[in-house]
Amino acid sequence: MNPNAINFKMVFRTIGMALMIEGGFMLTALPFSFYFHGGDYKAIILSSLITLIAGFLPYVFTLKNPDKHVGKREGYLVVTCTWIAMSIFGSLPYLISGAIPNFTDAFFETMSGFSTTGASILTDVEVVPKGLLFWRSMTHWIGGMGIIVLSVAILPFLGAGGVQLFSAESSGPMKDKLHPRIRETAKKLWGIYFLLTLAEILLLLAGGMPLFDSMCHSFGTLATGGFSTKNISIMGYSPYIQYVVTIFMILASINFTLHFYALKGDFKKFWKDDELRMFLLIILASGLFIGLTLFIQNAYDLEHSMRAGFFQVASIISCTGFASEDFILWPTQLWLVLLFLMLIGGCAGSTTGSVKVMRYLMLLRMGGREFKKIFHPNAVFVVRYNQRPVAEEILTKIVAFFFIYLLTFATGILLLCINGIDLISSAGAVATTMGGIGPGLGVFGPMSNFSAAPDFTKWVLSSCMLLGRLELFSVLIILTPSFWKK
Amino acid sequence: MNPNAINFKMVFRTIGMALMIEGGFMLTALPFSFYFHGGDYKAIILSSLITLIAGFLPYVFTLKNPDKHVGKREGYLVVTCTWIAMSIFGSLPYLISGAIPNFTDAFFETMSGFSTTGASILTDVEVVPKGLLFWRSMTHWIGGMGIIVLSVAILPFLGAGGVQLFSAESSGPMKDKLHPRIRETAKKLWGIYFLLTLAEILLLLAGGMPLFDSMCHSFGTLATGGFSTKNISIMGYSPYIQYVVTIFMILASINFTLHFYALKGDFKKFWKDDELRMFLLIILASGLFIGLTLFIQNAYDLEHSMRAGFFQVASIISCTGFASEDFILWPTQLWLVLLFLMLIGGCAGSTTGSVKVMRYLMLLRMGGREFKKIFHPNAVFVVRYNQRPVAEEILTKIVAFFFIYLLTFATGILLLCINGIDLISSAGAVATTMGGIGPGLGVFGPMSNFSAAPDFTKWVLSSCMLLGRLELFSVLIILTPSFWKK
Repeated sequence: MNPNAINFKMVFRTIGMALMIEGGFMLTALPFSFYFHGGDYKAIILSSLITLIAGFLPYVFTLKNPDKHVGKREGYLVVTCTWIAMSIFGSLPYLISGAIPNFTDAFFETMSGFSTTGASILTDVEVVPKGLLFWRSMTHWIGGMGIIVLSVAILPFLGAGGVQLFSAESSGPMKDKLHPRIRETAKKLWGIYFLLTLAEILLLLAGGMPLFDSMCHSFGTLATGGFSTKNISIMGYSPYIQYVVTIFMILASINFTLHFYALKGDFKKFWKDDELRMFLLIILASGLFIGLTLFIQNAYDLEHSMRAGFFQVASIISCTGFASEDFILWPTQLWLVLLFLMLIGGCAGSTTGSVKVMRYLMLLRMGGREFKKIFHPNAVFVVRYNQRPVAEEILTKIVAFFFIYLLTFATGILLLCINGIDLISSAGAVATTMGGIGPGLGVFGPMSNFSAAPDFTKWVLSSCMLLGRLELFSVLIILTPSFWKK
Repeated sequence: MNPNAINFKMVFRTIGMALMIEGGFMLTALPFSFYFHGGDYKAIILSSLITLIAGFLPYVFTLKNPDKHVGKREGYLVVTCTWIAMSIFGSLPYLISGAIPNFTDAFFETMSGFSTTGASILTDVEVVPKGLLFWRSMTHWIGGMGIIVLSVAILPFLGAGGVQLFSAESSGPMKDKLHPRIRETAKKLWGIYFLLTLAEILLLLAGGMPLFDSMCHSFGTLATGGFSTKNISIMGYSPYIQYVVTIFMILASINFTLHFYALKGDFKKFWKDDELRMFLLIILASGLFIGLTLFIQNAYDLEHSMRAGFFQVASIISCTGFASEDFILWPTQLWLVLLFLMLIGGCAGSTTGSVKVMRYLMLLRMGGREFKKIFHPNAVFVVRYNQRPVAEEILTKIVAFFFIYLLTFATGILLLCINGIDLISSAGAVATTMGGIGPGLGVFGPMSNFSAAPDFTKWVLSSCMLLGRLELFSVLIILTPSFWKK
């Protein structure tokens, strides 16, 4: 066999495996389908069967394939194509049940689920059968698991992304092979993900939220997704529920490796992490700014102002997108801060999207270094992270990522404006989908949705979710001609 | 003497010299003052005298000073303080004549002149006495000369900016001393600046524009400033005049070193310049996009659409800011393109402001390099400019500049929003002042002005002009504590 040819059989088999897992997960919605008598069980079972069969087919056709070679190109194809294939098959329950009859809308909703964005085209989620709503939240939870394995194991192996600074387990130049210890790590992180989900479900139950809603909202929180089972999201719930969700949104956007150390009792490593500190500082500063502005402008009393400020800051910076208030009604500077937070995101190694605090931290330190260099032009200054020097090639990766992120952001806005969307709504929509947040600004605010957007805009935004979620390079490299050569 | 102390005497003497030059230049407005009987001659003479005396005083008080040492810190102080001092004294003619009675406004107008921005607080320029209008355009022309000497001689010496790629004369690591050949270069470039100004004046005269307006508009074009002597800027003039101005705006935003080569007959060096090619490509693409959109939407006929598109693109990317149409009335995507162009700017080594094409070119090539690296992680890829490798330390400078530019941009927008300006107007105003363009968006569009803005906003925008014009670092470094230590 030609060693330079792409091992498509392997690619198809891996996508098939993912689809079979997806088909299995679909069935978890059945209990709620039956319990609530939503009449959606047929659509769920049929969708599951189709997905399982579609996933099994590549196995049948590649039975005699001995080629186990997996290189980087196979890796990129698997990552991008799996995400797309899962979004196509994941939209079947909506399509077959007729809850979302249009493919553009159903794909948008499912991509929004798997990419843990949480942007919706549903105008009234409360009339959707509960089984489908459970599947909708489940796509978030599966997406979150996918991102953890992606950021811990796959992206460092592929050499993209440039946030592989931590994972002590995987430091040093990566070999062209998945390290077995990385698989171990992924399993441990999934354990933490599962534990945190369980903890939130219990705390929400304790606050009087029914089991179904507790599960759905916890899936949405831990995956930093944001789909709610209510039209007004978290707005209608008690302050206690809002505090619980705030805390878990913040927990979900912290590097899971740090949670792992904290669970092992190593709190020093936890608190001394540069990225975590900057992340908490941003939350504190913007939460106080918004809370105090709301209070001074007599919008609400002090507790309510602070709760609203910190809830919305945590929701946006964690890229979850739950809403406790209609922030479009706040003064301009407050939702401008939220727009900035959309372009920041949480910590690397979590389920959050966007650019991530880590990259800004490195860019800031690179900026500071230039000031030092001006007076010491011949000295060599090293950018450090947690006291350890960061390789220049990782810095250039971060720079390239940041610049390409901005270029994609600008392109997206331009495309939406050409499609007739106003500038602020366009900027908000592209920022929110690329960052995997959910609510936008203007006509796509937290109390509206994307249903009225033209089809072209929906496809652009679906692409933004995919691009943002897979850290740009993984998708864009497939579009370069040199990827297919050799 | 302590060699680590800042040589303030030298700093004051240099600022004094600049003020004396300014005082002399003020008198050039007198002929127009007398000819048009505007009654502004007293204010001009008095302002000139005050400025000349203020510039002479440091000489009197530092007569016995033998310390000729000029280091980087003196350099930074001289650059920033000169620009501020000249803007303070340059506002005297407006204040003394009463044409602009408020200091905030007069300083804004003068800073806008010297920074070659062209943003104005005057609601009706046509009632302002002609002598003052001439001085207003003269501040542009002086500012343009200042920028040429700044970008060719001073900034490379200070080690800031990071666009010192070309100037073949000054390549190699800079010594801690002004190279005599750089002074020679500055003189040659001033010669080109003067010749181009003269050429435009003659061509505008040939198109029937009176001498006074021809001179003022040519000053505004070559300095890429944008002050006009008419309320509706270039809108009222013939297509011929608009074409002439378009061509000279483009010429003025090309690296003057390239003009120098072209004048010596070396057209190969001119056309083979990477930055120039990308610059012309951007103009072509955005001009066609705007022109065709206007034509398809039946805004104007084909010739008018194309003329409007290319005039406005040239005006914004060159950071001039003349208006031939009220582009606020165009569809969103068209003024969005103009907003992007505001953040791009012309070529390094010209009088344009903003980030400059050179830096984007390097960032794009850095982005492309990361794609190559993914499949060849151990290979070393060099970013090239005009076939020659670019040092990594110049690239990190460009990155830091770009990031700090964006941070300043975001901070400016936030400050304006807090001051009650809507988001689009804020974004437009900060982009246009940092880039030295002139007209903004929303309430600060090409047919409006900055007169109605609150004082706080005017000071923020004046600071943006200074920061943008002096390439950020030169101003920001003075604000760092370590600048004053040692």
